[in-house]
Amino acid sequence: MRTRQILCPTDFSDTASHALGYAIEMANLYQVNIRLLHVMSKPYGEHNYGIVVESSQELETQLKAYSNEKLAALVKEIEPKLNKTLQVKTAIRSGDTFAQILEDSVENDVGMIVIASHGHTGLSHMLNPNVSEALANKAKCPVLVVK
Amino acid sequence: MRTRQILCPTDFSDTASHALGYAIEMANLYQVNIRLLHVMSKPYGEHNYGIVVESSQELETQLKAYSNEKLAALVKEIEPKLNKTLQVKTAIRSGDTFAQILEDSVENDVGMIVIASHGHTGLSHMLNPNVSEALANKAKCPVLVVK
Repeated sequence: MRTRQILCPTDFSDTASHALGYAIEMANLYQVNIRLLHVMSKPYGEHNYGIVVESSQELETQLKAYSNEKLAALVKEIEPKLNKTLQVKTAIRSGDTFAQILEDSVENDVGMIVIASHGHTGLSHMLNPNVSEALANKAKCPVLVVK
Repeated sequence: MRTRQILCPTDFSDTASHALGYAIEMANLYQVNIRLLHVMSKPYGEHNYGIVVESSQELETQLKAYSNEKLAALVKEIEPKLNKTLQVKTAIRSGDTFAQILEDSVENDVGMIVIASHGHTGLSHMLNPNVSEALANKAKCPVLVVK
């Protein structure tokens, strides 16, 4: 764990942002970087991001721009709370949320995952008890599930 | 979280002891006490504790003595690693592991549960992916699942 970054998946919900608080504390404790990950899960839909578009390609482009903007805002929020030597990196993936988070944690040799137990309410949400439960079970590293 | 003790369930296995390392780090970080819990799960059996007895009452008495001894040994191990103002408390419960841990966390206003994702291998084990998964889902506080 000691020298490996902390992965914090976010769907930009309040619960995810609460989990981020713990991720910052863990990063400062272990002196490691934070890897902030957003998974754009298919099927995309208006209910997801409130974007109206004409083609699925245009939608993906717009979603990426939206996600990048949100991630950049989070980075600005996090940086002042992190010890000075530490960094926040961001990543966007698309596909099945659970599979993408797991894959990202392996590919990037993550030391701990800090994740909200649920995210957005309503029709669609990226983070939910199934995702965090499954991660707690299947991930190779410790998983902190935050309420 | 800040002023509430950390619950660490243990079945005295190596993985549980690895989780304990994280519990100590969390206790020191948040400046809170550790509550070390062992659940004696029924049905008791020889494969569980290696004790041969004549009545179930005698078994329960012996199991409690065995558990108390093991817990006391763990306390001795933990204390030197904890900040000086902090304490380790111990508790023994019996019954269904998941239900007992959950109940204990509520009754004692626990701020975080630190638990191994699996414990003993073989016929019986107190800690297993189902218990830690279910806790990550159902507990009211953050749950750190350690591999």
